[in-house]
Amino acid sequence: MSIQYSKLEHPLKLERGGVLHSPVVAFSTYGRLNEDKSNVILVCHALTANSVVPDWWEGIFGDARILDPAKDFIICINNLGSPYGTSSPKTDDESGKRYGLDFPDYTIKDTARLHIEFLSTLGIERIKMIIGGSCGGNVSQEIAVLLGEKVESQVLMCCSARETPWVIAIHESQRIVMRSDPDFVNKEGGKSLALRGARAFALPFYRSHASFEIKQSEEDPEKYDDFKASSYIRYQGEKFISRYDVHCYYKQLIALDTHNIGRNRGGIQNALGKISARTLCIGFSSDVLVPVIEQKRLAEDIPGAVYEEINTPFGHDSFLIETDKINKAVINWSRSRKN
Amino acid sequence: MSIQYSKLEHPLKLERGGVLHSPVVAFSTYGRLNEDKSNVILVCHALTANSVVPDWWEGIFGDARILDPAKDFIICINNLGSPYGTSSPKTDDESGKRYGLDFPDYTIKDTARLHIEFLSTLGIERIKMIIGGSCGGNVSQEIAVLLGEKVESQVLMCCSARETPWVIAIHESQRIVMRSDPDFVNKEGGKSLALRGARAFALPFYRSHASFEIKQSEEDPEKYDDFKASSYIRYQGEKFISRYDVHCYYKQLIALDTHNIGRNRGGIQNALGKISARTLCIGFSSDVLVPVIEQKRLAEDIPGAVYEEINTPFGHDSFLIETDKINKAVINWSRSRKN
Repeated sequence: MSIQYSKLEHPLKLERGGVLHSPVVAFSTYGRLNEDKSNVILVCHALTANSVVPDWWEGIFGDARILDPAKDFIICINNLGSPYGTSSPKTDDESGKRYGLDFPDYTIKDTARLHIEFLSTLGIERIKMIIGGSCGGNVSQEIAVLLGEKVESQVLMCCSARETPWVIAIHESQRIVMRSDPDFVNKEGGKSLALRGARAFALPFYRSHASFEIKQSEEDPEKYDDFKASSYIRYQGEKFISRYDVHCYYKQLIALDTHNIGRNRGGIQNALGKISARTLCIGFSSDVLVPVIEQKRLAEDIPGAVYEEINTPFGHDSFLIETDKINKAVINWSRSRKN
Repeated sequence: MSIQYSKLEHPLKLERGGVLHSPVVAFSTYGRLNEDKSNVILVCHALTANSVVPDWWEGIFGDARILDPAKDFIICINNLGSPYGTSSPKTDDESGKRYGLDFPDYTIKDTARLHIEFLSTLGIERIKMIIGGSCGGNVSQEIAVLLGEKVESQVLMCCSARETPWVIAIHESQRIVMRSDPDFVNKEGGKSLALRGARAFALPFYRSHASFEIKQSEEDPEKYDDFKASSYIRYQGEKFISRYDVHCYYKQLIALDTHNIGRNRGGIQNALGKISARTLCIGFSSDVLVPVIEQKRLAEDIPGAVYEEINTPFGHDSFLIETDKINKAVINWSRSRKN
């Protein structure tokens, strides 16, 4: 069974005032927890992924790679608000009705706290390494601040210390699109046409001018329409609505916007200064969504952190694509810090 | 009267097969045409602008600037398909009904041809300078190819020789949003909610990560919502639907995607090689939508062209914002080529 489920006994009090009574957590594990529970690698997934890591991060999975189930106990916990099993707008409220838009507002910190609470039910108190890209990198930072010296190391990719005004603007345009659909407020959510548009919007930001040149250039210079780039966007939009939920997407974007590692902690530098985990920040040269300057700033403010830049045309999604380079960077960094 | 109108006597046969019988042209002029008609500066406007140049390009307008009505006869012709007066989905067809989505498909080259035909009705056969940014730069290229040595010089900003797969992808996502609105197919078009979303989506691409940091950062680090960046996007979306037309926007994006200076001309290099106009290509360092590599390529392929890069955080919209730097670059270049 690739996805397991667990119901927490305690309610989760959310940062913005709501409460989730006995939240459900979906998760996946690979490898065995050793006796002293010292081989835990926590994978934090990105916005629309799920806990089944090999499905979307195969390239860093396996023998002699970052995630080696023969050595480590690898666990990925589905994010709060995601439609892939953990409590979300798609799950039922206390009265047995689908939450929909009534799902309480939550934050990235709440997701981190849920992860920590759930790990503790497995008897896991220390983490050998956290690794996450994009939204997963935000969750990782929060866990690293909350758990302090109990996190030994972390790898942050294409994320920032706070959601930037630039990304908030992009999310707002996506939310405008979702709200413009008359069906949006329906309790059942479902296959909103506007969801297709909102997702389609995000796709160019996940890639780059250069990657579209490589993948979607035309062989026929005489054509007027029916461009590959258009088909690609339509296809990706369609694929998304068959697997996703409009209310989850909407609420997740709101949660992302709340990401600010410095909130109620005396500012970003103060918060990042409390991280004990040895940290590697990886930036991807062509990332338009979360440019490398954001990962450089993280590396400046996290004590002892190392910044590594991977040169690539594949933009923000490089963390899913450039797995050979990531393996190499992380394994080299792991070795160097042991010396 | 800032906008004038003229009806052409000849039908305009469109590149994709349609015909516009006696098309209407909206235009604005500043300054006086001299006796030998040698002082014509043609301004080509961008996607959603109109012919009233000082309203949106005040900074390059006036004494000792690029557009000086005391010296030159400055004319701006409203683009085909725009809702600001020239024939478009918003105007009436032969039977007196609004075209709407039945407006025939047209290309950037058709816009260029309409401009040329209209100028000819004014007795203008030679152009001293064409200047245009973004879509206006595409139109300028087409005119420079079509008129050959009759164009003395041109200034191209943040445009490319063909619409890139990257930008086509962005336009397709905007079109998905417009099509998702059940009212989209209504003959009257009008204030589509989806238009607001489609426009909102384009805005981040017109600026940059850095410009949002400068303009939309929060003073309050403790907030969870109501971010400046969100308000900005909502406000801009609202403002747009009060001035624009969803069918015009839709058809204009299709026309932009057809831009390919090399189509039916033996390829891009061959077409650009035919340009006689002395050309200055200006790139803006932070342009995410049409990165500087595109303007460098133009400068490489247009005989004798000069490439100039303006360092700025304001992204694609820099051609409207960095007017002091543009004035300086163009005036220096004009002087240098006289030596």
